Amino acid sequence: MAKRIEPRVLKGFRDFLPAQELERKRITHILESIFENFGFVPIDTPILEYTEVLLGKGGGETDKQVYRFTDHGGRDVAMRYDLTVPFARFMAANRSALYLPFKRYHISRVFRGENTQRGRYREFIQCDFDIVGTDSHSADFEILLLMRRSLLALGVERFTIRLSHRGIFNRFLAHIGVSDRSAEVLRTVDKLAKIGRDEVHAQLSEIAGPENAGRILEYITAEGGFGETLAKLERFAGGPGEDTQRLATLRNYMHELGVEGTYVLDPSITRGLDYYTGIVFETFLDELPAIGSVCSGGRYNDLASLYTKEEIPGVGASIGLDRLLAALEELGRKPERSSGTAIIVFCMDESLIAECHKAAEFFRNAGLSCEVYPEPKKLAQQFAFAEKKGIPLGVFIGQNEVASGTVTLKNLSTRESHDRITSAEAAVRAKEMLGTP
Amino acid sequence: MAKRIEPRVLKGFRDFLPAQELERKRITHILESIFENFGFVPIDTPILEYTEVLLGKGGGETDKQVYRFTDHGGRDVAMRYDLTVPFARFMAANRSALYLPFKRYHISRVFRGENTQRGRYREFIQCDFDIVGTDSHSADFEILLLMRRSLLALGVERFTIRLSHRGIFNRFLAHIGVSDRSAEVLRTVDKLAKIGRDEVHAQLSEIAGPENAGRILEYITAEGGFGETLAKLERFAGGPGEDTQRLATLRNYMHELGVEGTYVLDPSITRGLDYYTGIVFETFLDELPAIGSVCSGGRYNDLASLYTKEEIPGVGASIGLDRLLAALEELGRKPERSSGTAIIVFCMDESLIAECHKAAEFFRNAGLSCEVYPEPKKLAQQFAFAEKKGIPLGVFIGQNEVASGTVTLKNLSTRESHDRITSAEAAVRAKEMLGTP
Repeated sequence: MAKRIEPRVLKGFRDFLPAQELERKRITHILESIFENFGFVPIDTPILEYTEVLLGKGGGETDKQVYRFTDHGGRDVAMRYDLTVPFARFMAANRSALYLPFKRYHISRVFRGENTQRGRYREFIQCDFDIVGTDSHSADFEILLLMRRSLLALGVERFTIRLSHRGIFNRFLAHIGVSDRSAEVLRTVDKLAKIGRDEVHAQLSEIAGPENAGRILEYITAEGGFGETLAKLERFAGGPGEDTQRLATLRNYMHELGVEGTYVLDPSITRGLDYYTGIVFETFLDELPAIGSVCSGGRYNDLASLYTKEEIPGVGASIGLDRLLAALEELGRKPERSSGTAIIVFCMDESLIAECHKAAEFFRNAGLSCEVYPEPKKLAQQFAFAEKKGIPLGVFIGQNEVASGTVTLKNLSTRESHDRITSAEAAVRAKEMLGTP
Repeated sequence: MAKRIEPRVLKGFRDFLPAQELERKRITHILESIFENFGFVPIDTPILEYTEVLLGKGGGETDKQVYRFTDHGGRDVAMRYDLTVPFARFMAANRSALYLPFKRYHISRVFRGENTQRGRYREFIQCDFDIVGTDSHSADFEILLLMRRSLLALGVERFTIRLSHRGIFNRFLAHIGVSDRSAEVLRTVDKLAKIGRDEVHAQLSEIAGPENAGRILEYITAEGGFGETLAKLERFAGGPGEDTQRLATLRNYMHELGVEGTYVLDPSITRGLDYYTGIVFETFLDELPAIGSVCSGGRYNDLASLYTKEEIPGVGASIGLDRLLAALEELGRKPERSSGTAIIVFCMDESLIAECHKAAEFFRNAGLSCEVYPEPKKLAQQFAFAEKKGIPLGVFIGQNEVASGTVTLKNLSTRESHDRITSAEAAVRAKEMLGTP
């Protein structure tokens, strides 16, 4: 072998070691089961798509971050940078095979060549769930409920879902005569947490004049509880409408289901994107608000307009899985397992290897994960291996055990031992030691 | 919106509709649990890597199929085309954080811009499992056992794992004096199923002369059972060696564990790659041999030589998940579920939506997946929706039910109905109807 190659990983990309990957899988499986419990179904789309399909006419901020190239067939292709655009394309392409309302979830990788500062990665897992094909408030509520349920299932106890309504905000902007600048206003308000109130005021003054800037800042300030804030928004927007009525209905559902403690009406939540037309929401961890929203989304009135003339309204949210994992780690929740192995069968003697595999098969059939150390190395070395892999129980099969048709089972941390018992008894004892039924 | 964009997918890439994706997830979860049951741990590596890292000095056949481009930072990058090369790089990069022997599995996407004829895709799921850091026959046996167990767990009943040993073949080639042409011989023999015996003979004659071609063809022909064939190989290779001894030991283990029916010693299995040094194997479905091997691999003596001077021997296999799924479908096994929903709560009246969500939460907490139809559409439309989504049970909540604090539960195919019972009783009846505990 000539010159060796440095085994380096691209900036912004990561290897996942077993403990991290087990944790990521554990969290993914929890979310999958919660989503399916709510009647959501999974879909998948390609990592690589026609650039035209992903970027449309292009020109936005996102475009610069997209991994884009020409493939072997001379096609202009790109790696997906989110799961929303592929979902829109998917709905348009597969419309005849699907039914509405369609509730899908999608947990998969996306790629953005953005700045890697502040713990951002260029390859990361997105977790999206949407209900499309209905404009009902029931769907709005279900998404809000599912966000709450998902975070609770992941063991996040203290969090707040802050929500607002784009329609009311737009009515308010029309009311003060700045509808034509709503996009800039939204983008500016969305930066509140990042740049602070004074800077937002300065920028809004430039966009809409100092008087309107003041009123906008007043609008986005929450006032008392849900009811008081809603009353204020209604006033600012020039009276009640379908939008304020919808928030009142959602509030009522939250009350009926006994979950109102989770949700705060916060008019400063606007989400930057033009895309949203109804409720919008973000989720903050009470103990770590600074890391930003871990689950955001909202209602939109036309998912797939780029590809089809059929109007598909919907509501959906996206969990930033990597951000959430980083947050959980910061809150002191370490991945618990380095492996899923419950029992290791130590290798005492080369001539007994078949016996080791037989015992391992017995334990596996009894529902216990089990591995065989492959060589008759020194026991100290085999113990060190078991410890590094976090394996709690060990089984020893020596000549004595083989002669009597038994095994010896040991708890590797407490040293509790059951000598020369049958495999069947060992399986029972092992489950006792592990505390599993 | 100006001109619409056609929602097309790149050739060789695919969308996965819910039923297909549920099936893919089901199979993946089964494999994950089997692997963990054997003490294998998951890892992950990036989709995108430095081209140099993936292709080394390059120049091979694979290179032309690799998606390769220059990123925003001017780096020469490529999308991974298998999981073996990234694993080798991973071992070299993370060696200090790992222990040996290391048993990893990796189920993830790879990309090859190859010809899309014959049902080949450009993005597909690879499923690899390897034991590295040991040259023991115990590890060889474990991989063979795990292959068997994985296929059985997936419901594949009739299959044969055909194995052979590269070392014996190399000794035989040395014995007849064509060691210097072993790579070409291997590649030619590997094409046996594809091009037939006569064409292989013709090509071997050109490589090694007609007499040797005849002997090679004789060598690769199985003769009787495992024992007879092994005796023949030993004879052809010039006598016993560590390699033939290892096959005899493996044969003994298969017998001890009572699994010998699954394995056939087939000297025509050589695997094309130079990489392998010990046992090599392929797996064929007895009912569909023509689709080729669904699980292949072998032993290699130096996994990561491109990146590190540490010699890491190993043994591993790879399941072609997409090929296997296609085969199972061809054998008549259709994906069973269009969704995971057990119960749909129909929406009878807009004013009762909160009640619907309350009931749904009750069923979910009782372990039953449940969804709420979001709007008070005509019941016929809601029934059609439930049927398309394959939901077996329906719950009706009308004014009568609300007044009496009950629900009505119906089996949507048999029409069996339980009228106005409590949610708690409905949960019990639902589980009876579903046949779940």
